[in-house]
Amino acid sequence: MKTDYQQISDALLTEIISIVGEQFVLTGKDDTEPYSHDETEDLHFYPQVVARPHTAEEVAALLKLCNDNHIPVTPRGAGTGLSGGALPVNGGLLIAMERFNSIIEIDEQNLQATVEPGVITETFMDAVAEKGLLYPVDPASKGSCFIGGNVSHGSGGPRVVKYGTIREYILNLQVVLPSGEIIWTGANTLKYSSGYNLTQLFIGSEGTLGIVTAIVVKLIPRPTIDALMLASFGTNEDACAAVSAIFRAGVVPSALEFMERRGVEWVIENDGIAFDLKDDVGAFLLIEVDGTNQDVIFDAAEQINNLLENYNCKDVLFADTAAQKEELWQMRRTMAVSVKSNSVYKEEDTVVPRAALPQLIKGIKEKGARYGFESVCYGHAGDGNLHVNIVKGNMSDADWNTKLKDGIREIFELTVSLGGTLSGEHGIGLVQKGFMGIKYSPVHFALWRGIKQVFDPNYILNPGKIFD
Amino acid sequence: MKTDYQQISDALLTEIISIVGEQFVLTGKDDTEPYSHDETEDLHFYPQVVARPHTAEEVAALLKLCNDNHIPVTPRGAGTGLSGGALPVNGGLLIAMERFNSIIEIDEQNLQATVEPGVITETFMDAVAEKGLLYPVDPASKGSCFIGGNVSHGSGGPRVVKYGTIREYILNLQVVLPSGEIIWTGANTLKYSSGYNLTQLFIGSEGTLGIVTAIVVKLIPRPTIDALMLASFGTNEDACAAVSAIFRAGVVPSALEFMERRGVEWVIENDGIAFDLKDDVGAFLLIEVDGTNQDVIFDAAEQINNLLENYNCKDVLFADTAAQKEELWQMRRTMAVSVKSNSVYKEEDTVVPRAALPQLIKGIKEKGARYGFESVCYGHAGDGNLHVNIVKGNMSDADWNTKLKDGIREIFELTVSLGGTLSGEHGIGLVQKGFMGIKYSPVHFALWRGIKQVFDPNYILNPGKIFD
Repeated sequence: MKTDYQQISDALLTEIISIVGEQFVLTGKDDTEPYSHDETEDLHFYPQVVARPHTAEEVAALLKLCNDNHIPVTPRGAGTGLSGGALPVNGGLLIAMERFNSIIEIDEQNLQATVEPGVITETFMDAVAEKGLLYPVDPASKGSCFIGGNVSHGSGGPRVVKYGTIREYILNLQVVLPSGEIIWTGANTLKYSSGYNLTQLFIGSEGTLGIVTAIVVKLIPRPTIDALMLASFGTNEDACAAVSAIFRAGVVPSALEFMERRGVEWVIENDGIAFDLKDDVGAFLLIEVDGTNQDVIFDAAEQINNLLENYNCKDVLFADTAAQKEELWQMRRTMAVSVKSNSVYKEEDTVVPRAALPQLIKGIKEKGARYGFESVCYGHAGDGNLHVNIVKGNMSDADWNTKLKDGIREIFELTVSLGGTLSGEHGIGLVQKGFMGIKYSPVHFALWRGIKQVFDPNYILNPGKIFD
Repeated sequence: MKTDYQQISDALLTEIISIVGEQFVLTGKDDTEPYSHDETEDLHFYPQVVARPHTAEEVAALLKLCNDNHIPVTPRGAGTGLSGGALPVNGGLLIAMERFNSIIEIDEQNLQATVEPGVITETFMDAVAEKGLLYPVDPASKGSCFIGGNVSHGSGGPRVVKYGTIREYILNLQVVLPSGEIIWTGANTLKYSSGYNLTQLFIGSEGTLGIVTAIVVKLIPRPTIDALMLASFGTNEDACAAVSAIFRAGVVPSALEFMERRGVEWVIENDGIAFDLKDDVGAFLLIEVDGTNQDVIFDAAEQINNLLENYNCKDVLFADTAAQKEELWQMRRTMAVSVKSNSVYKEEDTVVPRAALPQLIKGIKEKGARYGFESVCYGHAGDGNLHVNIVKGNMSDADWNTKLKDGIREIFELTVSLGGTLSGEHGIGLVQKGFMGIKYSPVHFALWRGIKQVFDPNYILNPGKIFD
């Protein structure tokens, strides 16, 4: 990690103001406070200056200035990240992308759209839905996160299981490099075999290689019908075992979410969610199938229903109305925010081959018992992607701040031993980087750092993240 | 481009033999001739030595030896490439991957497989089909190409239009770096947000960053039914205009292939393919829909049929039997090999946003008229991916060897002006690299070369390709 960064002098501040305009530059603790944290635990790091540019040319001028003067730069989307990727750990300049909020074009001829990175994901989804099109990458935070942040984290969401991650929908990116050069990474085409794929390299790079200023997205025809069911099981293991069975039977649901009993209890207790939680239920699967033909969807739902019976499923609740569907989805989405609102917490994002989920959950609970932490687990079971929310509960401050780290390390060691990796969709950012050595060798670190050096030789972009 | 490579001395040859065994080392023009060319035009470059290793450790020992001694290394799959990626332009050691021919595991629990790079693509497709699974990446050469070569080129094929390119099916790669280090690029998971995505960087890197020795592939449930129709149009433009319309109507076919009249004439004339080619037909679309429900497929086919009527479609022929389907596919696939067998030719691989196809074809024909070359065009219209086969015909040797290059340059200039790029699935290799400057800036070249330097500081791997 580089440490000899410079402070932003008054002269540099004047230059920053001349680039973006005085009303779009913030300094001082009060004004920069909203940019000092994201949704990662209770972490705060203050930037020296916040700039809110509006064009790629303004971003280019800012980056060139910082590059020439060795000022650390932290790009920031909506600040909904869970791994501290947007935290300005070295102070310096924070570039807030919130004014890049235009949907530039929805191209119905080619089923593509060009969108700025500061557009809220759901806003974009709604805009293309109006044209009968689908952009399926819907993280739980879709109502507040930016699509640019989604690109930076390689985001997913419930529908990945059928439609794929954001990686499969980004065709081309306009990026500004630390040198101030503005390039398009590829072409607006569905296929690409023309040199190293810079588009894919930028996806998931967490703002360490360049700043994305425009995004060309692939769209697909929108399914018009769906069915949603909630299946209950006695144990986590039974629920997870059913997940693999559904795919083996040839059914591809459009969502296959896991929720453990503790998660449902948690939202009932903390958020007043009304739900009749039976005593003998240990876990749930929320299963959606979508398409354009009612018969096909009915058949698929029935096939899943029949299959679940062989996997110790206790009960299947079909959502009959749009309101019922929304209630079930609300329960799942609330779980994702409830822990953050109601407790000191840490969120870990584990991903394993789908069939290893039962072993993963079992191991997490064993470690929790041994280390004395409570966990609320839920996630995208169809992808083998489990979010592990660790709540402080009765843990002493001392244990929370020191001993817990060993427990989390054991969770990741288990994840890796099952063929998985540290993060499926939340990124590594600041808080997971200490665990990267569990999965990756010094050779990986050397390659990553080498790539970083090519794009950002002065190490100004988002320092202290991923591997730094 | 580096030029100070060393020859393989007798001492080094002895070391190579000690690594892979004498029966797996070839020298001399006769024995190395099969490795001196791929399917790119009539180009021949002889390697000094061919080694056929069997394990990642053997590849590692070979690469380390060549890296320490500055010997150029050309990795080779099945040699079916169309851009000269496997041509050993600097002599040196050619590493033939044909003995990496095992399907290591088909994991039906996780719908994944682990396969060696020298497995023939169709062999792998058939093996997973026996388990009721689909690996959908089916280039026209699937019966002879290797899956490792497909990874290196970011390959596609007819089914990309519904199922995506190989990029969406590769989860993890075992690669050997020039240093001799063996790493896995990622994890065997459906999602990945854990550092720069090395897996995606290797896909399409044409053997310039490392040598792939094992591949973890995502599989999906296999569709059980399909319908195939051949639609005829008066003009190329009418056929291409219908392509966009099909997607806009919300139908996603599993193949949407374009064939111009000249292509059909060509296979009738040169390959004895029987087909009743009407005088007023200028172009065809071969359209497949697949799935698991007969009614849905019937509805989709009918929807396409009705829609085509609005796009000046002259006739739609439905293939009623498996034999008829095979005949239609045979015509399309023969077109891809017929030009190579029956003429001196050059094949260019253009890709544009789908709706720009009519302009692209029109422009290619205009340029052909101006420069005096004949072109046979066909390809994956649903992806905007057009293969342009240029046949020598009556062109003089002088014009073929000099003037034609200007015509090809104009084709790529048009492709890029329409938002496209040089190659969708064939790669850049040797023969397209001179055109890369049409699309990409010195900044792109600097980034690519910088990345190359990180992985291969002595520039031993496949020199002279893509951007070198």
